[in-house]
Amino acid sequence: MVPIEKARKITKKKGLPPGTLVYVGSEKNSAIKVQILDYNEKTLTDKELKRIEDIISHKNKKTVTWVNIDGVHDLKLIERFGKHFDIHPLIQEDIVNTNQRPKFEEFEGYIYIVLRMITFKDAAKNLDLEQVSILLGNNFVTSFQERPGDVFEPIRQRIISGKGKIRKFQSDYLAYSLIDAIVDNYYMVLEKIGEYIEVLEEELLTNPTHETLNKIHRLKGDLIYLRKSVWPLRDVISSLQRSESKLIQESTQIFLRDVYDHTIQIIDSIETFRDMVTGMIDIYLSSVSNKMNEVMKVLTIFASIFIPLTFLVGVYGMNFHFMPELDWKWSYPILWIIMLGSAGTMVYFFRKRGWL
Amino acid sequence: MVPIEKARKITKKKGLPPGTLVYVGSEKNSAIKVQILDYNEKTLTDKELKRIEDIISHKNKKTVTWVNIDGVHDLKLIERFGKHFDIHPLIQEDIVNTNQRPKFEEFEGYIYIVLRMITFKDAAKNLDLEQVSILLGNNFVTSFQERPGDVFEPIRQRIISGKGKIRKFQSDYLAYSLIDAIVDNYYMVLEKIGEYIEVLEEELLTNPTHETLNKIHRLKGDLIYLRKSVWPLRDVISSLQRSESKLIQESTQIFLRDVYDHTIQIIDSIETFRDMVTGMIDIYLSSVSNKMNEVMKVLTIFASIFIPLTFLVGVYGMNFHFMPELDWKWSYPILWIIMLGSAGTMVYFFRKRGWL
Amino acid sequence: MVPIEKARKITKKKGLPPGTLVYVGSEKNSAIKVQILDYNEKTLTDKELKRIEDIISHKNKKTVTWVNIDGVHDLKLIERFGKHFDIHPLIQEDIVNTNQRPKFEEFEGYIYIVLRMITFKDAAKNLDLEQVSILLGNNFVTSFQERPGDVFEPIRQRIISGKGKIRKFQSDYLAYSLIDAIVDNYYMVLEKIGEYIEVLEEELLTNPTHETLNKIHRLKGDLIYLRKSVWPLRDVISSLQRSESKLIQESTQIFLRDVYDHTIQIIDSIETFRDMVTGMIDIYLSSVSNKMNEVMKVLTIFASIFIPLTFLVGVYGMNFHFMPELDWKWSYPILWIIMLGSAGTMVYFFRKRGWL
Amino acid sequence: MVPIEKARKITKKKGLPPGTLVYVGSEKNSAIKVQILDYNEKTLTDKELKRIEDIISHKNKKTVTWVNIDGVHDLKLIERFGKHFDIHPLIQEDIVNTNQRPKFEEFEGYIYIVLRMITFKDAAKNLDLEQVSILLGNNFVTSFQERPGDVFEPIRQRIISGKGKIRKFQSDYLAYSLIDAIVDNYYMVLEKIGEYIEVLEEELLTNPTHETLNKIHRLKGDLIYLRKSVWPLRDVISSLQRSESKLIQESTQIFLRDVYDHTIQIIDSIETFRDMVTGMIDIYLSSVSNKMNEVMKVLTIFASIFIPLTFLVGVYGMNFHFMPELDWKWSYPILWIIMLGSAGTMVYFFRKRGWL
Amino acid sequence: MVPIEKARKITKKKGLPPGTLVYVGSEKNSAIKVQILDYNEKTLTDKELKRIEDIISHKNKKTVTWVNIDGVHDLKLIERFGKHFDIHPLIQEDIVNTNQRPKFEEFEGYIYIVLRMITFKDAAKNLDLEQVSILLGNNFVTSFQERPGDVFEPIRQRIISGKGKIRKFQSDYLAYSLIDAIVDNYYMVLEKIGEYIEVLEEELLTNPTHETLNKIHRLKGDLIYLRKSVWPLRDVISSLQRSESKLIQESTQIFLRDVYDHTIQIIDSIETFRDMVTGMIDIYLSSVSNKMNEVMKVLTIFASIFIPLTFLVGVYGMNFHFMPELDWKWSYPILWIIMLGSAGTMVYFFRKRGWL
Repeated sequence: MVPIEKARKITKKKGLPPGTLVYVGSEKNSAIKVQILDYNEKTLTDKELKRIEDIISHKNKKTVTWVNIDGVHDLKLIERFGKHFDIHPLIQEDIVNTNQRPKFEEFEGYIYIVLRMITFKDAAKNLDLEQVSILLGNNFVTSFQERPGDVFEPIRQRIISGKGKIRKFQSDYLAYSLIDAIVDNYYMVLEKIGEYIEVLEEELLTNPTHETLNKIHRLKGDLIYLRKSVWPLRDVISSLQRSESKLIQESTQIFLRDVYDHTIQIIDSIETFRDMVTGMIDIYLSSVSNKMNEVMKVLTIFASIFIPLTFLVGVYGMNFHFMPELDWKWSYPILWIIMLGSAGTMVYFFRKRGWL
Repeated sequence: MVPIEKARKITKKKGLPPGTLVYVGSEKNSAIKVQILDYNEKTLTDKELKRIEDIISHKNKKTVTWVNIDGVHDLKLIERFGKHFDIHPLIQEDIVNTNQRPKFEEFEGYIYIVLRMITFKDAAKNLDLEQVSILLGNNFVTSFQERPGDVFEPIRQRIISGKGKIRKFQSDYLAYSLIDAIVDNYYMVLEKIGEYIEVLEEELLTNPTHETLNKIHRLKGDLIYLRKSVWPLRDVISSLQRSESKLIQESTQIFLRDVYDHTIQIIDSIETFRDMVTGMIDIYLSSVSNKMNEVMKVLTIFASIFIPLTFLVGVYGMNFHFMPELDWKWSYPILWIIMLGSAGTMVYFFRKRGWL
Repeated sequence: MVPIEKARKITKKKGLPPGTLVYVGSEKNSAIKVQILDYNEKTLTDKELKRIEDIISHKNKKTVTWVNIDGVHDLKLIERFGKHFDIHPLIQEDIVNTNQRPKFEEFEGYIYIVLRMITFKDAAKNLDLEQVSILLGNNFVTSFQERPGDVFEPIRQRIISGKGKIRKFQSDYLAYSLIDAIVDNYYMVLEKIGEYIEVLEEELLTNPTHETLNKIHRLKGDLIYLRKSVWPLRDVISSLQRSESKLIQESTQIFLRDVYDHTIQIIDSIETFRDMVTGMIDIYLSSVSNKMNEVMKVLTIFASIFIPLTFLVGVYGMNFHFMPELDWKWSYPILWIIMLGSAGTMVYFFRKRGWL
Repeated sequence: MVPIEKARKITKKKGLPPGTLVYVGSEKNSAIKVQILDYNEKTLTDKELKRIEDIISHKNKKTVTWVNIDGVHDLKLIERFGKHFDIHPLIQEDIVNTNQRPKFEEFEGYIYIVLRMITFKDAAKNLDLEQVSILLGNNFVTSFQERPGDVFEPIRQRIISGKGKIRKFQSDYLAYSLIDAIVDNYYMVLEKIGEYIEVLEEELLTNPTHETLNKIHRLKGDLIYLRKSVWPLRDVISSLQRSESKLIQESTQIFLRDVYDHTIQIIDSIETFRDMVTGMIDIYLSSVSNKMNEVMKVLTIFASIFIPLTFLVGVYGMNFHFMPELDWKWSYPILWIIMLGSAGTMVYFFRKRGWL
Repeated sequence: MVPIEKARKITKKKGLPPGTLVYVGSEKNSAIKVQILDYNEKTLTDKELKRIEDIISHKNKKTVTWVNIDGVHDLKLIERFGKHFDIHPLIQEDIVNTNQRPKFEEFEGYIYIVLRMITFKDAAKNLDLEQVSILLGNNFVTSFQERPGDVFEPIRQRIISGKGKIRKFQSDYLAYSLIDAIVDNYYMVLEKIGEYIEVLEEELLTNPTHETLNKIHRLKGDLIYLRKSVWPLRDVISSLQRSESKLIQESTQIFLRDVYDHTIQIIDSIETFRDMVTGMIDIYLSSVSNKMNEVMKVLTIFASIFIPLTFLVGVYGMNFHFMPELDWKWSYPILWIIMLGSAGTMVYFFRKRGWL
């Protein structure tokens, strides 16, 4: 369950002065990769940087500079970056402390956005979360990720190939594109969850076990967590829209409105999925009840047919000296007829009640 | 279940630049039909167009021009339309991507409205959804539908026959009429759902099975989805009302207020239906409990009457040498009397408890 | 169930141009009665009109004119009325289409208010609804009802007898009095529902059956419907209060505040009743569980006492040649002692568990 | 149940003109007591009045005059009071009609406040409610109660003894003190409910019966009713705070803020109690389930051990001529060994499952 | 359960004039400790005071003075403190009455903040609460705690060692640091609750008993209480942020925004935990149902196999004289074959149903 683990992580920070960088994630050993894409409509630079300080030469160019940093566990590196770009220590802390709620903060000269990149892992059927921090400045965008591997590849391709409008726009359009890529990926997650719901519904109809209920509950937990990641996104994007910062150009507004609509749609779908999963729990409980009902019926049918018969044969197993029936010739076959008749009556009665 | 399928569709778009037209529906092969109705109080033109470009000659006339396009899977066609009428690429994307939440957007020179046309299919007892996009401009209205067949026929008849006030009004009244037709059709859907609820209630009272519960749950899912389609409509219409666009004339305001009231009424009815369906689930579960109770009672009555008797006859089936009762003459009839008395007592006891 | 029926009615209108009068109720045959009360502090006219046009002579008098119309199924009559008094076609439609949500609309020269007059029918234990439309103009009030019979009798008496302040006030006070009479009647409905809840509670404690649950559910449905009728009333009255229309005099404000307070109180009571009814469902389910528990206990007690004994007597019913106990003299009485002891132990054990 | 009874009371008023005084309570015979306390920092008058008109001599003095009236069923008296002090007829009606929701109303020259004085009766374990109306004017406060006996005794003592600041302040501080006394008493009620919850929890853990559930439900009903009495109080006090009336001095503001905080705290506690009571219902239902489980286990253990043995001894009770085992010498003891072994196996199996 | 106990405490105050100091806690005997830390960037005084009056000499110094008082049960001391620092009597009451909801109040010259310091006691698995009052004035901060022992130690260390920025900032930064320390500690509490949830989930999967349910309910109660402590905190901090007091410097704003974000995150986690705990109750109830199902199956299998066989052997235990089968040679082995066959059929049938 993600939230418990997350709650535990953050406590490592307790007692330190605010603004102290503490990494709380688990990716401590992988090498940090700093990738730079520097472009305008005509030129394009695409290289990997060795030292964070190499960014500085791109900082004041008129071209748009996108620095993507994979790995935030090198606290020194983030601190040096923060110093060179004049980033507030609390923001540095937020970049490193990969537990942030999606949020938007506006500073003198830059905008800070935190998002969650989410993947639904098919094997384990649970969510994988990665914090993405985006720093949007004049002519530059820096994105921080916890691990290599992301959903930004199509954007890179579009920049490099020069397809689409991206090369003609400013850094705010790039930031929008990154947000849009993350939000678009939520549809992918929803699609996979939708498929998984179908699998679970099938399982529920054919062979529901206690394990099915556990799966449904885990899925419900995932949906709660997904919801927690997407709800604040709404505010983030509407804050971006309403921001009066000069960094956001008017032509980008309509694109932000579009991604805002997508966020609403995703929230809608999550709520629908939650309603469906809640309904599945009801169906599960009802099918457990039904099964118990079936078991009870079988027991009742057997017991109700044979217990009276057993009594009857017990009667003629008694050893009283004076039992006239014992000596009659037709007693035995007549008793069989009576017994078969009684059993038949019971069967008829159960049929009528719909138990057979 | 509609939402899963819908969620899956949209993901085909992932990774493409915003504003790229991608059709996500399933109607790929049917021919696209472009129908034009051009009218004012005196003149009327009603024809089917071969090429989208033929609309342009009607564009700047003072008459009201209604273009209805059945099928949005021909991306080229939509793109050409968009170019001629100067429609923003994101709106073109919304027209084609038939997954939009009902929404209202205002642009320089036109207003874009997305709605959902809903049908309740009697056979399958589920909802059929179709996205309708309405572009309202000065003197023209364009409506885009996914498939042929719609609820606009009475409006066409009214225009052609010249009945009602529609020929005297401007394009905003036509747009209102389209919205009103869609909203009025929701009443039809509610009526059918209401009838279906009555059928299910009957089934619930006479012969509730696990399948009944499944039907109730599917219906509940449909109501959730219907609700999702109607709630945003409220905002759409109130945005239209509050819009300061010159396209909306003051005389249309009161009609919009009327359709707004209808929307509220429909939402009210959906909520009532949801409450009723929730109550039906409770009744189902309670009737399952009752059935189990019945089964248990039958078992208990049989067991409680015959188990003691079986014990008694077992006693006199023992082979001890010294059992004085065995030799008494009246033992056997007395035992029968005792056994009948005991059974009678049990029956009386169950009667008093209300089990028989 | 009221809502389904209501939802069905309205669909008859589908496809007609807005403003077309369509009656959706069931009272098609009763004669329409037009009653007029024309009064000021000194004079009083009380008569029944033959033709709707006879109202016109009263229209411009300085006296307050109250026209009460029983029956809205004569569409021609309403249309003529609308024409003479210059009522908007959509309002005419609302008067006739007796499905309106309580609402308040302000026009040039008049105010339109829709309310629901509600009765709780004792025999069928369900709600009877009747739409009341009130048109408040300068010096005149027109009230439209679906059927003869209403809650306005005391107001008529007060006007005729000249008791109270009503004869001294203007038409807005008359409109307030009508609203107040309708709202006061809701207390009557709540009282009857309260009595019915007490009856159901009694039934629940003494002899709860599946039918009891059905009754509770029907009552819950009624409360949902009642709530739907009263909630919008709050907005209606507060709109009246906040209205800047010259038709509402300042001295009437405090009376409107009073009726507003009553509405809040009624909503409060409805919510309390709903909570109580929900609690009754819980108690019902729990008592079903308890009954099943009782049944199970009886079964278990019988089975647990007699099954071991039956085994024991079975042992000595065996026909082995070498069973020494069979020949002992005291075997039989000793076995009885053992069996009675074992049964006693079981009874003691069940007593201790609180099952007996 | 309080609300039903209350709902019934109010209907006696139906049909009368607004502003007609109708007493709806049950205390019709007790004598009405009018107590006056007239004080400033130096002087003090404390006497019981014979006639309501005797108040008038105190009305225009500069001292603070507190008139406390026990009993509102003497309609004439209230009417005369209202006339002398110029109180609006609707307010007179509210004083007498002891069903008001807590509310605050501001008039020219006076403020009207309705509150509910609540007691938790230990014996019957239910709430006792009494409406207290407070009229705050310049230099005078009048409080109306339904019955003798109240929570104002400490305030009287403080005024008479001259302890605290009360004698130095104006009438608004006195009104605040009355409200504070009523609100402080809610803590008393909460404490008693808290103790009762502890008793019920104990009962729930040791010996839960169907009666326990009824008690929990009654308590839940009381909490719903308590909540309905306290929620509107919040608005009353914040209206008092925000009031721009000259009757409320600035120095009293901070005291009102304090009593407002208390109201919030009480609402908080009520919500917590409601959550706890809801949790208790869950625990009750679960313990009923557990009991049923226990019963089932006992039945299953007995049946599963003895039914196979009974079969076995039945086998050797058969009368076939050719049953070789019957003649073997060791058959009988061997059978006992087999039976004991089988019973032991069952016991071991039940132990392993945790049923024993 | 914390809330009941708390509700009881406060009632000791009932009837006393407002502003009377009454201690409601349980720590009446421990000695009160007054600790002072007086610092600016260069100087530092750290000592324990004997008399409260010794603070006064520090009051008007330009250095920041932090007075920490452990124990609020010495009412005289608080009263003397209040007099020297000119604290409003109602605030003195709030400091002593350790039942306050977290709140923020602004006065002339100082700001009063109440918070709850919370610990999760591992042994008893419940929450321990302590009220912390913070008085923020110009150049001084006073913190009042109920008991010795707190979460402020790291702050003391940072001040004494001169690490971090704390020595360079004013008293508002110190107040922020105290709030931040308390809020950071909530993460610790959440972590422990998270671990406890994991333990309970393990218990739920392996061996759920009625006691498990009680534990879950107690935990749920704790979460409700935790939520009640943290929700108002949000308003406290946002009031601090929006405060226009000169005591809050602009540079502190961003730190307050940071602690505000933490509060939101904590509320988020509490809600997630509540959802998880609610899900655990569902799983518990379902596993109780499953267990009952298991028990029923065992009973049914045994009964269904052996009851018919017992009947059969009963048949041949009858003593009729004319029972031809009794004399046949192969009757006995054939009966065994029939019985084994019948039992085998039953086993096959139960296998097919998935009961074995």
